[in-house]
Amino acid sequence: MTVMLRVALGIVGLLFAQAVVAADNPLSSWNDGPAKKAILEFVAAVTDENTKDYVPAEERIAVFDNDGTLWVEYPMYTQVFFALDRVKKLAPQHPEWKTKQPFKALLEGDMKTVGASGMKGLMELIMASHAGMSGDEFEQEVAKWLATARHPHLDCLYKECLYQPQLELLAYLRANEFKTFIVSGGGIQFMRPMTLKAYGIPPWQVVGSSIVSEFKTRDGKPEVVRMPKIDFIDDKAGKPVGIYQHIGRRPILAFGNADADMQMIQYTKAGKGRRLGLFVHHTDADREYAYDRDSHVGKLDKALDQADANGWIVVDMKNDWNRVFPFEE
Amino acid sequence: MTVMLRVALGIVGLLFAQAVVAADNPLSSWNDGPAKKAILEFVAAVTDENTKDYVPAEERIAVFDNDGTLWVEYPMYTQVFFALDRVKKLAPQHPEWKTKQPFKALLEGDMKTVGASGMKGLMELIMASHAGMSGDEFEQEVAKWLATARHPHLDCLYKECLYQPQLELLAYLRANEFKTFIVSGGGIQFMRPMTLKAYGIPPWQVVGSSIVSEFKTRDGKPEVVRMPKIDFIDDKAGKPVGIYQHIGRRPILAFGNADADMQMIQYTKAGKGRRLGLFVHHTDADREYAYDRDSHVGKLDKALDQADANGWIVVDMKNDWNRVFPFEE
Repeated sequence: MTVMLRVALGIVGLLFAQAVVAADNPLSSWNDGPAKKAILEFVAAVTDENTKDYVPAEERIAVFDNDGTLWVEYPMYTQVFFALDRVKKLAPQHPEWKTKQPFKALLEGDMKTVGASGMKGLMELIMASHAGMSGDEFEQEVAKWLATARHPHLDCLYKECLYQPQLELLAYLRANEFKTFIVSGGGIQFMRPMTLKAYGIPPWQVVGSSIVSEFKTRDGKPEVVRMPKIDFIDDKAGKPVGIYQHIGRRPILAFGNADADMQMIQYTKAGKGRRLGLFVHHTDADREYAYDRDSHVGKLDKALDQADANGWIVVDMKNDWNRVFPFEE
Repeated sequence: MTVMLRVALGIVGLLFAQAVVAADNPLSSWNDGPAKKAILEFVAAVTDENTKDYVPAEERIAVFDNDGTLWVEYPMYTQVFFALDRVKKLAPQHPEWKTKQPFKALLEGDMKTVGASGMKGLMELIMASHAGMSGDEFEQEVAKWLATARHPHLDCLYKECLYQPQLELLAYLRANEFKTFIVSGGGIQFMRPMTLKAYGIPPWQVVGSSIVSEFKTRDGKPEVVRMPKIDFIDDKAGKPVGIYQHIGRRPILAFGNADADMQMIQYTKAGKGRRLGLFVHHTDADREYAYDRDSHVGKLDKALDQADANGWIVVDMKNDWNRVFPFEE
């Protein structure tokens, strides 16, 4: 039995090895160029036991920002659209919102006043839409919303506005025994209902911002209940902290798209041995959007200036990706 | 190629299926009895697509407390021994400790006064020994300590004082496509240097208590630095919260050994479908220790009273385990 098992495993091993080689272009939506070359060379080096760059499989940690790196973030983070829709849905239970800003403005469609309420106003909308319910209820609300909510300009549901080249990269890394994680400024529990299906990333490999939660028994049922208070902001200098607390191992590859990802990539690159740091640069106004230094979302400014000096790879969406979305033909 | 691959995979599939059946006693350190029966029946049910209890692999989450459930916690939590040893090691750099309690008492070997300093004193020792260094430095310190630190009574290094039946259970669950997690009141970063080797559990599947950490650039090197402030206590009602925030999915199996694990097990059992909750009862004064209702560590009192009514399985170490430690013969 043992011998047969070994023989069979040997056959499969050989076949898989050949399959990886045979799939001669695992990143087919990536054009040949410096970005794709850097990725292929990096993966080849850290997986080859005969190089000084070799990294054991258990230490092959790759982290990805979500908004603007794995899925669309323009003209506004998907989670903000969710919050706005949910406040509208909850309005009948909150007659006080008719006279209370920024709720009043939102319900009247006056987005300028909503915007003018600033971070304080936005936090009130986020708390009203994200807290005051159990974890299970929130998960169901998000899943229900994601099932039908459409992007305002692109021809896709939000959950379909994913970048095809990144889906290929995630699969390619996993095929090379990397563990793939999301490390996002977005809400950890907002992302989790879709990450496994969309990206092949299970809930416990998602790191994000969170609100305080408490264990309570309601109607005799033990639950975790979401409270209207910020627990952790997984953004900028929070990202390396989120990685340390949640993953517990320094990544060898980090991929972002904004200045808010710089600290995560600095932390990644500062580890011993070969590391790779990358940014998506949104340069494609035809297929997606073009924005960077002055953008209200995904601002990419300092990172562009410092990329060369730090050896960060800037992926030019227009030139490096021959296909942006899975639904393109 | 595809056909060959399928044939080869088919052979392997068959062989593995037979291997699982052939290993006729995957829990060989467990005596036949109600606890082992409950585990085997539970795993058989949730992995059988033809039962109403079937759970897809991606939802087969099993959580284990660490101290007293996977490794020894008596006469004192291993992490406390680490803290005491580390304070002694750091003493030459802290002349002020010669006159400051509880440091003075500890350095003089006066453990009674240390104990009398209570939770406040203990927290001072924990912070002095766990904070003020980078995450990498702390990991190295813990690993170095674990490499040689011996249990005061048992004939093992702390890292070897593991329960053999639990190692078998973890492997058995993983062979049945469960994902295994640690959910412990102990420090998350104290556990991580040993969990992969000891239990086959990678760092990101370890949930625990934490101190605040901050991203800083020290000597030009971006690092996460540990601060002397509690971030999260993953104990009692904190355990379901830790599970929600870190794992993001309600477990179907939870295993603890103390009243402090009740909330985790209540939360687990309150989910829909078949669930299993278990407690180790330390009843073996010959091979390990016997303690429960009045113990200063791992107090097991209310849970014993409520076990029957809630369908919690109480594992009697003396009678349910024919072998306690891997190093026994």
